[in-house]
Amino acid sequence: MKIRVIHGPNLNLLGTREPSVYGTMSLADVNEKIDAHAKKNGITVEFFQSNHEGELIEAIHNGDGIDGYVINPAGYGHTSVALLDAVKGAGIPSVEAHMSNIHSRESFRSHTMTSSAMVGVITGFGYMSYILALDAIVHYLSTCKK
Amino acid sequence: MKIRVIHGPNLNLLGTREPSVYGTMSLADVNEKIDAHAKKNGITVEFFQSNHEGELIEAIHNGDGIDGYVINPAGYGHTSVALLDAVKGAGIPSVEAHMSNIHSRESFRSHTMTSSAMVGVITGFGYMSYILALDAIVHYLSTCKK
Amino acid sequence: MKIRVIHGPNLNLLGTREPSVYGTMSLADVNEKIDAHAKKNGITVEFFQSNHEGELIEAIHNGDGIDGYVINPAGYGHTSVALLDAVKGAGIPSVEAHMSNIHSRESFRSHTMTSSAMVGVITGFGYMSYILALDAIVHYLSTCKK
Amino acid sequence: MKIRVIHGPNLNLLGTREPSVYGTMSLADVNEKIDAHAKKNGITVEFFQSNHEGELIEAIHNGDGIDGYVINPAGYGHTSVALLDAVKGAGIPSVEAHMSNIHSRESFRSHTMTSSAMVGVITGFGYMSYILALDAIVHYLSTCKK
Amino acid sequence: MKIRVIHGPNLNLLGTREPSVYGTMSLADVNEKIDAHAKKNGITVEFFQSNHEGELIEAIHNGDGIDGYVINPAGYGHTSVALLDAVKGAGIPSVEAHMSNIHSRESFRSHTMTSSAMVGVITGFGYMSYILALDAIVHYLSTCKK
Amino acid sequence: MKIRVIHGPNLNLLGTREPSVYGTMSLADVNEKIDAHAKKNGITVEFFQSNHEGELIEAIHNGDGIDGYVINPAGYGHTSVALLDAVKGAGIPSVEAHMSNIHSRESFRSHTMTSSAMVGVITGFGYMSYILALDAIVHYLSTCKK
Amino acid sequence: MKIRVIHGPNLNLLGTREPSVYGTMSLADVNEKIDAHAKKNGITVEFFQSNHEGELIEAIHNGDGIDGYVINPAGYGHTSVALLDAVKGAGIPSVEAHMSNIHSRESFRSHTMTSSAMVGVITGFGYMSYILALDAIVHYLSTCKK
Amino acid sequence: MKIRVIHGPNLNLLGTREPSVYGTMSLADVNEKIDAHAKKNGITVEFFQSNHEGELIEAIHNGDGIDGYVINPAGYGHTSVALLDAVKGAGIPSVEAHMSNIHSRESFRSHTMTSSAMVGVITGFGYMSYILALDAIVHYLSTCKK
Amino acid sequence: MKIRVIHGPNLNLLGTREPSVYGTMSLADVNEKIDAHAKKNGITVEFFQSNHEGELIEAIHNGDGIDGYVINPAGYGHTSVALLDAVKGAGIPSVEAHMSNIHSRESFRSHTMTSSAMVGVITGFGYMSYILALDAIVHYLSTCKK
Amino acid sequence: MKIRVIHGPNLNLLGTREPSVYGTMSLADVNEKIDAHAKKNGITVEFFQSNHEGELIEAIHNGDGIDGYVINPAGYGHTSVALLDAVKGAGIPSVEAHMSNIHSRESFRSHTMTSSAMVGVITGFGYMSYILALDAIVHYLSTCKK
Amino acid sequence: MKIRVIHGPNLNLLGTREPSVYGTMSLADVNEKIDAHAKKNGITVEFFQSNHEGELIEAIHNGDGIDGYVINPAGYGHTSVALLDAVKGAGIPSVEAHMSNIHSRESFRSHTMTSSAMVGVITGFGYMSYILALDAIVHYLSTCKK
Amino acid sequence: MKIRVIHGPNLNLLGTREPSVYGTMSLADVNEKIDAHAKKNGITVEFFQSNHEGELIEAIHNGDGIDGYVINPAGYGHTSVALLDAVKGAGIPSVEAHMSNIHSRESFRSHTMTSSAMVGVITGFGYMSYILALDAIVHYLSTCKK
Repeated sequence: MKIRVIHGPNLNLLGTREPSVYGTMSLADVNEKIDAHAKKNGITVEFFQSNHEGELIEAIHNGDGIDGYVINPAGYGHTSVALLDAVKGAGIPSVEAHMSNIHSRESFRSHTMTSSAMVGVITGFGYMSYILALDAIVHYLSTCKK
Repeated sequence: MKIRVIHGPNLNLLGTREPSVYGTMSLADVNEKIDAHAKKNGITVEFFQSNHEGELIEAIHNGDGIDGYVINPAGYGHTSVALLDAVKGAGIPSVEAHMSNIHSRESFRSHTMTSSAMVGVITGFGYMSYILALDAIVHYLSTCKK
Repeated sequence: MKIRVIHGPNLNLLGTREPSVYGTMSLADVNEKIDAHAKKNGITVEFFQSNHEGELIEAIHNGDGIDGYVINPAGYGHTSVALLDAVKGAGIPSVEAHMSNIHSRESFRSHTMTSSAMVGVITGFGYMSYILALDAIVHYLSTCKK
Repeated sequence: MKIRVIHGPNLNLLGTREPSVYGTMSLADVNEKIDAHAKKNGITVEFFQSNHEGELIEAIHNGDGIDGYVINPAGYGHTSVALLDAVKGAGIPSVEAHMSNIHSRESFRSHTMTSSAMVGVITGFGYMSYILALDAIVHYLSTCKK
Repeated sequence: MKIRVIHGPNLNLLGTREPSVYGTMSLADVNEKIDAHAKKNGITVEFFQSNHEGELIEAIHNGDGIDGYVINPAGYGHTSVALLDAVKGAGIPSVEAHMSNIHSRESFRSHTMTSSAMVGVITGFGYMSYILALDAIVHYLSTCKK
Repeated sequence: MKIRVIHGPNLNLLGTREPSVYGTMSLADVNEKIDAHAKKNGITVEFFQSNHEGELIEAIHNGDGIDGYVINPAGYGHTSVALLDAVKGAGIPSVEAHMSNIHSRESFRSHTMTSSAMVGVITGFGYMSYILALDAIVHYLSTCKK
Repeated sequence: MKIRVIHGPNLNLLGTREPSVYGTMSLADVNEKIDAHAKKNGITVEFFQSNHEGELIEAIHNGDGIDGYVINPAGYGHTSVALLDAVKGAGIPSVEAHMSNIHSRESFRSHTMTSSAMVGVITGFGYMSYILALDAIVHYLSTCKK
Repeated sequence: MKIRVIHGPNLNLLGTREPSVYGTMSLADVNEKIDAHAKKNGITVEFFQSNHEGELIEAIHNGDGIDGYVINPAGYGHTSVALLDAVKGAGIPSVEAHMSNIHSRESFRSHTMTSSAMVGVITGFGYMSYILALDAIVHYLSTCKK
Repeated sequence: MKIRVIHGPNLNLLGTREPSVYGTMSLADVNEKIDAHAKKNGITVEFFQSNHEGELIEAIHNGDGIDGYVINPAGYGHTSVALLDAVKGAGIPSVEAHMSNIHSRESFRSHTMTSSAMVGVITGFGYMSYILALDAIVHYLSTCKK
Repeated sequence: MKIRVIHGPNLNLLGTREPSVYGTMSLADVNEKIDAHAKKNGITVEFFQSNHEGELIEAIHNGDGIDGYVINPAGYGHTSVALLDAVKGAGIPSVEAHMSNIHSRESFRSHTMTSSAMVGVITGFGYMSYILALDAIVHYLSTCKK
Repeated sequence: MKIRVIHGPNLNLLGTREPSVYGTMSLADVNEKIDAHAKKNGITVEFFQSNHEGELIEAIHNGDGIDGYVINPAGYGHTSVALLDAVKGAGIPSVEAHMSNIHSRESFRSHTMTSSAMVGVITGFGYMSYILALDAIVHYLSTCKK
Repeated sequence: MKIRVIHGPNLNLLGTREPSVYGTMSLADVNEKIDAHAKKNGITVEFFQSNHEGELIEAIHNGDGIDGYVINPAGYGHTSVALLDAVKGAGIPSVEAHMSNIHSRESFRSHTMTSSAMVGVITGFGYMSYILALDAIVHYLSTCKK
């Protein structure tokens, strides 16, 4: 089973960007945590980060050999119809993950356009959000045939 | 480590209630799944279900010997300031879980009053939402001192 | 055929509460009127009143031997997602009744959360709202198989 | 006692229009049902249907010899201040009836401008909505002197 | 003259719940302060606290021998039509009190459903809000005959 | 100079309709007042009333020999884009008149779609609103060339 | 009969201020027109202009020997609760006048707080709005005893 | 194949009404253009214009021998639930056409109630909107069987 | 301890202004009541009333020798950012008082801009609101050091 | 005459993406249809697709040798001010096309930011929307000099 | 060239008012900074501060010998139509300045009524906002003839 | 000191794009003006323009050797959470500049998502907005240590 983890805009700054909100681990550290967890469970993961909405859309389109996505749409998730359409169009089961609890920050962060196309959403647990999302998508793929 | 899993209104109907949305497992089945997962990880869980807002509030207040909560506020989560205040007042770390993806149903379900007081929120994975929430709260308790 | 009539919060005050809005008949008087009408039509009715949202939810859950409900959710009807879910979850055909015309009072009364799960809604005819609702649910049960 | 039943726009299509919503009875069939029920209760009914807002207004104005109205304003009910004013101006007690449950369809159908001028509103029971409305207005006329 | 002081949900946590907002006095301490003030003014007070909306409604209904209420509806005050109806239905003069200044917290706290049925509202003075409310209701009862 | 006075829906009921709002003069009485005032000022007036939106539109279209309009759109004024377009399309200077003060009634009456196409609006003076509107349109026609 | 004409903020600029909206007559010119019209009808008028909300309030309070007001609240009319309260508190019949048609300008101008306390409102006729308002208040005072 | 072209309110004024928005062609000119285009493509068209909402509804109901509609609802399109229901009830494929670009005018014109019942919508091309709509409905009828 | 009581616009009309809302006591009577109560408690009070927003702002700025304010912002309280800033800028503890229950009147009165800068708010008790506010500010000053 | 057809995000998925909404033709198939239609009418078309908002903006900027655009902004059309500004800035006449009827899907799709800068909009006819848009822009370019 | 700098309400408190927001310089200090900068550039400046909306309006009206304004409307800027009209009526080019960044404070501060009448707006730079505004208005006056 | 000036989408069209709004200077001309001003003040500036949101984000991320930013987010500023997060994440002081006065154009332009992360905002002065922003950021960097 192969899962692609897609990181949206500004996540390349992890570790330096607003550490009081996002913690001090770098994106490489986060990916390493995810990879170790995946390996332990016999899952292959690959990583993609982009600050470009169009590249994120294409990373979602091009799902050859991928069974599921873990997507942190970051800032684009709050407004992007195009990302929503990409997830619906690609037809690959996806789970949305946010490191911070989007419901306890500015009010414009509490709504995401993309969530309605997802299997489910996990928000608020730092890097652990990704690992829980990985478990969730793996469980979904193992048990659901829809 | 001991976690209380709190099920809100109508969850006693699981398995019979709207199976196209909530699946065919009963609440007892769900609790068994959670309990098995907890045991495997050396965690003790106890369960509480109520259709009464006041009983849910008191189950949150009375946290003696409990390290964390997994709370599915169900219908009360969308409007209840009192439940929000209970979580904030009790001071015990809590994770919110919903079995269905609240973002892909009626629009009044996409907002929850309670989420801002939680460590994080997990929504959309059926009974697996509870198990992920259990992992999340255990991880949170193991790593955070705030 | 057996119908349960469920009265929501504050309806125990009938006859004394705001008589200019709700009239001077007591709840017992109202129930007697409903019962007499039911008997005349060969229907069995039973009555339940509670000021507790959780008890109302459970009165809706526990439908053994009941063919249909007449529900006056009163104040809870305007905001309660949990009551809405109870009606949807119980799967027993239900008709909503209000004694006053909710559309000619304060604006917050003109919307009810629960109505979308009902067969239909009857509002504005004092105790006669219950009797019309009884006729409606009986007719529905006699003619519809959905 | 004489009651006029007023059918608003598009109701002449009954039986052919969206049968999944409105059923397969024609307007003539519905009127026959109402008439039979009225006769059984010693009430005279007359019928009026129009797709013209102005004709509906005038059917409400011209109440000579009429004791009460049963009005299904259909599509005009959601926006028409002029129909609301007609009901208030005519001063003849009126009950609003809708065949479908307007609260479980598109959101713009859940509000009606006309309802605040009515004795009460009945919605969701197919042709039975008219019969219940007839009973309601007859009961109102028999018992209220306002 | 006898006044019942009704404390809403979560107020049993006083002293431990969010002390930066609500201070460090327990509910028992607060009640003692109120009682002392009442005794000094020749007033009898009794106390009631519940986290259950239905119990609060019934505490308002059952006003035998009570001249007035001081009600802190806490979280239920922001959304509850049923509590509003209880106050209106009971017909016993009531004053609403909040310990924190509800106008300087989250925006959803600045509106209360219950206030329109009250004689008046006092907000922001910690336990002193109750004492001022007691003075207010006593003054109201002593001077108004409406 | 010739002015057409156009009365919208329900104004044929004047004198009987809600006399507490609209007074006890009939439409004929009102027209007589307007006519007398016009004659005194050497103006010819003609009158038109309809409850049909389409007839009102056409009365506005067909302006041969008419210098200006006084229009009371009544209930249609609050929602009708078609009437607005008729006034703009006809290109004949028009003044809007309302007998009641639309700003001190239900909130949906305080906005009119038609007003933006008018020279001006006069509201609140009973039949005198028409006479003031007549003076206004005559003054406008005598002094403005736009 | 004595009428006070009250001009709100910026009206002292008339003739120079945005002539495309307000015309080229000065405030003195306008007052002269009003005065001439009043004299012709045997009415005494006095004039007051202020750019200070408080002075306008006090001009409304101090109504000794004044039978009615014509008030152009200008910019303050759109937001001022204090002016609304002044009109209600003074108890002297008042008519609101605006020179421009407030319904065909920016959307924030189409609503006025003050209008609900007025006998009626006249808008859109340049200086003629004042003269019509004068006629309206004189007619109102001559015919109404409420 | 036979198509009915239905023109809504005020379109009879074409050529004289607001030429800067709608151009200088009369409705007869427009119909001639449409007819010529239809003939060239072997299609029969018939034309209907009315300023009466009820007549438009009935022109939509009475579709004997008609394969499709081109409808310009004009001002009624922005608010009319009754027209929407007529299109849905008639069950004849329909295309909506507007001569002006409704998205670049007043904001209340950018939404139409009727569009959701249409095959599609064409807006902004003057008389060409009708010709494109004719091509669209003919193409739809030729290729779709739903 | 010295407290300044600041009365906002229109309060100089007390006793004559809308007595059904504000009672029949004059402002002098109210001040006398407050003064008597203050004297009994060893407090000095001084009074200020103005209909001018700027004078109210300056009465708040100039707090030499004053320990606290009781402010009834009246109509300005609903919209004035400048008054809010004055209270925040002056840094002198303030309590807001309203004689009527602002929550049971027009909806625009239920929100006040100024309340968030206050220690607390008291509304609905006629002149007693001032006396309770005086007790509140004195208690606050005696017990809080923030 | 040369027209550029610009396809927005996710349209590269045509044929595989949500075929129940967008049909089973691939983007190449659609382009071929458009090209064949253009050739038949002596028009040259070129095609551009991108999932990148910036590339779409630049495809609109760089209009050398292009007479007009047909633009399907897809998901970016609902929110993008930058695309709107690109169309306004480029100054090349443009027609907006959508394959699905955006008015009969989720409510957030019924509004597009870009439409106000277009000559007109065509929505709902599958690939035929592009061909109609091509006819529309060609007709516009042939007849309008603005 | 002569510029008047107009300071709105509460700015006389500068240095003492909320220093964490507005800094510790007094208004005299700020004016001195502005004056020094003006002198260096050969510009004459004069200063005006008032807490009275009417005085601010009149300071804007009376522009004899003044080439441009720098206006900090402070709290009045968020709601005042009268100030907006004063700027538009005076016809003297004006720049709006705010010391704090109004976009990063309470949401009601992010909108100003007055900005649309200004040449431009500068916000967020403490006293430097005034100096930049001075440069801006001088540059505008030197280069624009509109 | 080194400042990067970042131009958002469509600014490459300057001089040709809507000259009535943006003037006739090209972007190169604007940059030259800025550069000359910077040189005169001993500041180094570099320029970046992109129509790609992702490239703008990365130009903000990569701040090595840069002391501050002047950012004109253009169309992206009104909706982009990702740009907001980029500014917050990069931690380099930034000033927002707009050439046109965004408060006197379409209403959707009066709000910007990005402004809350900026030191301040300057809008309305054409190319001079950039120069003022340069002065502002230089002054900020010279005087603030936060």
